[in-house]
Amino acid sequence: MRLVTYRASIESEARLGVLVGDLVVDVAALGARAQVPMPSRMLDFIDLGPVALAELGLLIEEAKGRWPVGGALPLSNVTLLAPIPRPRKNIFGIGLNYVEHVAESARSLDTSQDLPKQPVIFSKPPTTVIGPGDPVVHRGDITRQLDWEVELACVIGRTARRVPTEEALNHVFGYTVCIDMSARDNRRAGQWIYSKGQDSYAPLGPCIVTADEIPDPQTLDLWLTVNGVEKQRSNTKHMLFKVDDLISDISQGITLEPGDIIATGTPAGVGAGRDPQEWVWPGDVIEAEVVGIGRLRHPIVAG
Amino acid sequence: MRLVTYRASIESEARLGVLVGDLVVDVAALGARAQVPMPSRMLDFIDLGPVALAELGLLIEEAKGRWPVGGALPLSNVTLLAPIPRPRKNIFGIGLNYVEHVAESARSLDTSQDLPKQPVIFSKPPTTVIGPGDPVVHRGDITRQLDWEVELACVIGRTARRVPTEEALNHVFGYTVCIDMSARDNRRAGQWIYSKGQDSYAPLGPCIVTADEIPDPQTLDLWLTVNGVEKQRSNTKHMLFKVDDLISDISQGITLEPGDIIATGTPAGVGAGRDPQEWVWPGDVIEAEVVGIGRLRHPIVAG
Repeated sequence: MRLVTYRASIESEARLGVLVGDLVVDVAALGARAQVPMPSRMLDFIDLGPVALAELGLLIEEAKGRWPVGGALPLSNVTLLAPIPRPRKNIFGIGLNYVEHVAESARSLDTSQDLPKQPVIFSKPPTTVIGPGDPVVHRGDITRQLDWEVELACVIGRTARRVPTEEALNHVFGYTVCIDMSARDNRRAGQWIYSKGQDSYAPLGPCIVTADEIPDPQTLDLWLTVNGVEKQRSNTKHMLFKVDDLISDISQGITLEPGDIIATGTPAGVGAGRDPQEWVWPGDVIEAEVVGIGRLRHPIVAG
Repeated sequence: MRLVTYRASIESEARLGVLVGDLVVDVAALGARAQVPMPSRMLDFIDLGPVALAELGLLIEEAKGRWPVGGALPLSNVTLLAPIPRPRKNIFGIGLNYVEHVAESARSLDTSQDLPKQPVIFSKPPTTVIGPGDPVVHRGDITRQLDWEVELACVIGRTARRVPTEEALNHVFGYTVCIDMSARDNRRAGQWIYSKGQDSYAPLGPCIVTADEIPDPQTLDLWLTVNGVEKQRSNTKHMLFKVDDLISDISQGITLEPGDIIATGTPAGVGAGRDPQEWVWPGDVIEAEVVGIGRLRHPIVAG
């Protein structure tokens, strides 16, 4: 299933929808017609666990293509927001998680050339999150080195505490795409939150694909372009720590909760690793896709 | 004013209270009696801004010592929780923010001996927060270097976006105490979230003292003991970046929102900086105070 958070019109509030063909079907409206109370927010839906997901599947099936009027709108008529517009805690970010990216970072940044022995974890506050198409704000007074990183993001569905690797994927609700914008000149004493945590630095979306549709998250192509020119292209099979490793590792000390987001790291091809180095500037457009999940397109604007 | 989050009994839900002498007066109950709707949760109260705070002051005054029965309990009869039991994002932590602590860290950890030129920012997930008296969990399989750091914590009251230093304190709701527990052997490639972000690693409380009672947050004594032996003693005047610097600096790139918490760094005397190094172990008890705000006391337990 492909779940979105959408606004029917500019005045409407954000609601939970499910993509059926090129329609956005409102989950709460679909439920209401069948007298099955369903939530209108993504996080509330995730909290309800597999029962709600199974019920939604049945409601769609039983609708047999007859949708509530006003409760199913053409995708082109709505505005998609980030699927989780306001996470309940900082996004967990993973650094240096693709082999070639470790090498390019060691050449261009202050990181080691050795492969990390454990996941390198940082965080991005909820205020970083923007939805599909929203502008990434370039603050020329703060950074002259704004960089791109396309990433597969994993959304937790069940609380994970000290989970072994082989059970870790059972705790995934679904997957989405995150661009981990990074102001390279804003790293401080090695800590990355300022560099990666500024407002608008986490384009997220366009949808969450539920985990049942992606049984193996380590088989996904992903790419990123700047102004149409390809900068990154890889496959999640090249991750150093796989999604299950990451969940297991974090959960040993930090309880992962429903709705938590883990951005799983980026492959080679970032601007810092190029010769000469490249950065994005107001007027540029970044496009990124994890194939099978969806595509994001974001203008850079001066702020 | 001294605000707390408390449970009247073990079965009761967490509620917002205000300390009046040795009574915890329930804010919503006090409001209800005067037909003034008041929230029952700390974050909701902070969101309401100065009008709610002023109104609460008047309600207390007008009560003239006659409290709603059941709505004012002896402090000794209630359980205090962390004043914000569940922050809406990770706590912002500040590293290396007292001069002598920079020196001891450089001797014992992998940090530089130079004073930071900008605040060093990391984060602690909401799952780190525990209330007064709650056990800090020592996971012997994960860490053999669990360390202590007493800190003044500042709670944001008004959204701060690109705020100049001279206006920054206007954005403070109040102050509380945080112990920034740190597993020194859990730092990864310099990133501190795993070291400082594990479950139970942020004892917080016992109350929030509103900003009007602390016009200058840079005059406060603070200390910490382990099993009654003093380990840290300093004054917030020794901070490298003052509270107003920190708010101004973070807000240049990261919007600070009502309820956000900034743990402002620790003075010298941590276990890592001692010769020989000292750590806490199950059975130990940490006590810490920021004088004028309150005292925390936490057992370390095996987990």
